[in-house]
Amino acid sequence: MQGLSLVNGLEAAGIDPFDRGVAYGDGVFRTFRLQAGVPLEWPLHYRRLARDCAALGIECPAESVLRQELQRAADRCPDGVGKIVLTRGPGVRGYAPHQAGPPTRIVSAVPAPAYPASYAVDGVRIRVCELRLSWQPRLAGIKHLNRLENVLARGEWQDTAVAEGLLLDFADRVIEGTMSNLFLVVRGRLVTPDLSRCGVDGVQRERVIAFARSAGIELEVRDVTLPEVMAADECFLVNSVIRLWPVAKLEDRSWRPGPLTRRIQAEVFAGA
Amino acid sequence: MQGLSLVNGLEAAGIDPFDRGVAYGDGVFRTFRLQAGVPLEWPLHYRRLARDCAALGIECPAESVLRQELQRAADRCPDGVGKIVLTRGPGVRGYAPHQAGPPTRIVSAVPAPAYPASYAVDGVRIRVCELRLSWQPRLAGIKHLNRLENVLARGEWQDTAVAEGLLLDFADRVIEGTMSNLFLVVRGRLVTPDLSRCGVDGVQRERVIAFARSAGIELEVRDVTLPEVMAADECFLVNSVIRLWPVAKLEDRSWRPGPLTRRIQAEVFAGA
Repeated sequence: MQGLSLVNGLEAAGIDPFDRGVAYGDGVFRTFRLQAGVPLEWPLHYRRLARDCAALGIECPAESVLRQELQRAADRCPDGVGKIVLTRGPGVRGYAPHQAGPPTRIVSAVPAPAYPASYAVDGVRIRVCELRLSWQPRLAGIKHLNRLENVLARGEWQDTAVAEGLLLDFADRVIEGTMSNLFLVVRGRLVTPDLSRCGVDGVQRERVIAFARSAGIELEVRDVTLPEVMAADECFLVNSVIRLWPVAKLEDRSWRPGPLTRRIQAEVFAGA
Repeated sequence: MQGLSLVNGLEAAGIDPFDRGVAYGDGVFRTFRLQAGVPLEWPLHYRRLARDCAALGIECPAESVLRQELQRAADRCPDGVGKIVLTRGPGVRGYAPHQAGPPTRIVSAVPAPAYPASYAVDGVRIRVCELRLSWQPRLAGIKHLNRLENVLARGEWQDTAVAEGLLLDFADRVIEGTMSNLFLVVRGRLVTPDLSRCGVDGVQRERVIAFARSAGIELEVRDVTLPEVMAADECFLVNSVIRLWPVAKLEDRSWRPGPLTRRIQAEVFAGA
């Protein structure tokens, strides 16, 4: 495979078979765009890494260490996708987190995925996943390594014409996409699901929210139902790799990318 | 560390940094006792491995392959603890499970933990965890690698006098221990929590249930509340490594190991 990974700074190294990352999914991660070797929105990603590590009681490595390792990986794939995985480190056996060694760093860069250019321009077709997200306030928002729900949900379809699936919780509230955060435009207001029970609180969601606040756009972070999505004036998805995709079709509902979607695309995601 | 691990049959090998086991916890595992190099209850463990792999759509390796690799590991630690982790294998990026390579096998043996002999004889002190288990029927019962809830729950205490913690769900039903399954004796009947919403359906739970049925002991698999645990005549925990521990103390309630506990210990766990 093209690309490069460093495990604790070592090229071509494997992960300790007793690492708690593989044993329990005991760790966190971030994925982001590289542009001419520079990780986009790096300060926000590092801040989230540190916050997510703190939530799990994992010692977050110094920013300079990660940044240097990322530079080595990015040199190989300067316009690819960077990823940092931090685990609680190796531990022989047992769930007790205080028995772990130092955290493990897995820093990698791989070529960017080849999404059709039309996705950002005309929008994407999406579906509603059958899997329902569980509620776990202790883990909600955190980009941790326990991602079997996302794997099972993404495994529900293989139709390449469907770009993303919406995930609902057990109360049938719409939470997010399998790999993205969701925004609606309802009568000029920006609406995005509350993530206090489940879901991943992504960096691009934070950036869109910050933009809305700075631009004086009314914003609601709250529970969202599927009928509300279907009735929304505009609908779009964001993540750090895809950036922004307008939603063009969901079941029998079609949208054209609307004015607020285009404005956010231009002002928040310009040049990337 | 003492012990041995084999990754896809290779000694001293590391795990591919792009393995989905570490990226998403996308896999399953089993842990079991070795006795003179022989894995106890191996047919049950292999059957569970195959069942859990099928539930996640992972191809389970042939029993002969795992058994041979286990033998190599067990030769190094003939009276230790064996473990098999199976992941969906390496995959560059993205949740879609059908993009994965062949499954990864991590087979290991390590020395047995040094639990005090009194645990099985006099019983253990346990506590109630603050963390509440989330409901996910799609994953309930499966011994998968998404174990952050267990890690966080086990991280709630460091007092070595407390041997285990009880996990409740969001409806305050008692589900299991952080690493064990729970049984109560209530007026001569054996009671164990229903695991259709959350929890791990362990091999020793299956063995105790099978024994109860064959011995004509009345058995109830149903929802259990904490007051019911406190009021139970007997209470014990099982897993494949600890075997059976009577519960001696939970908050202000004390028990002495009772007759049905002793009978199951003798008849189901004799000699191990």
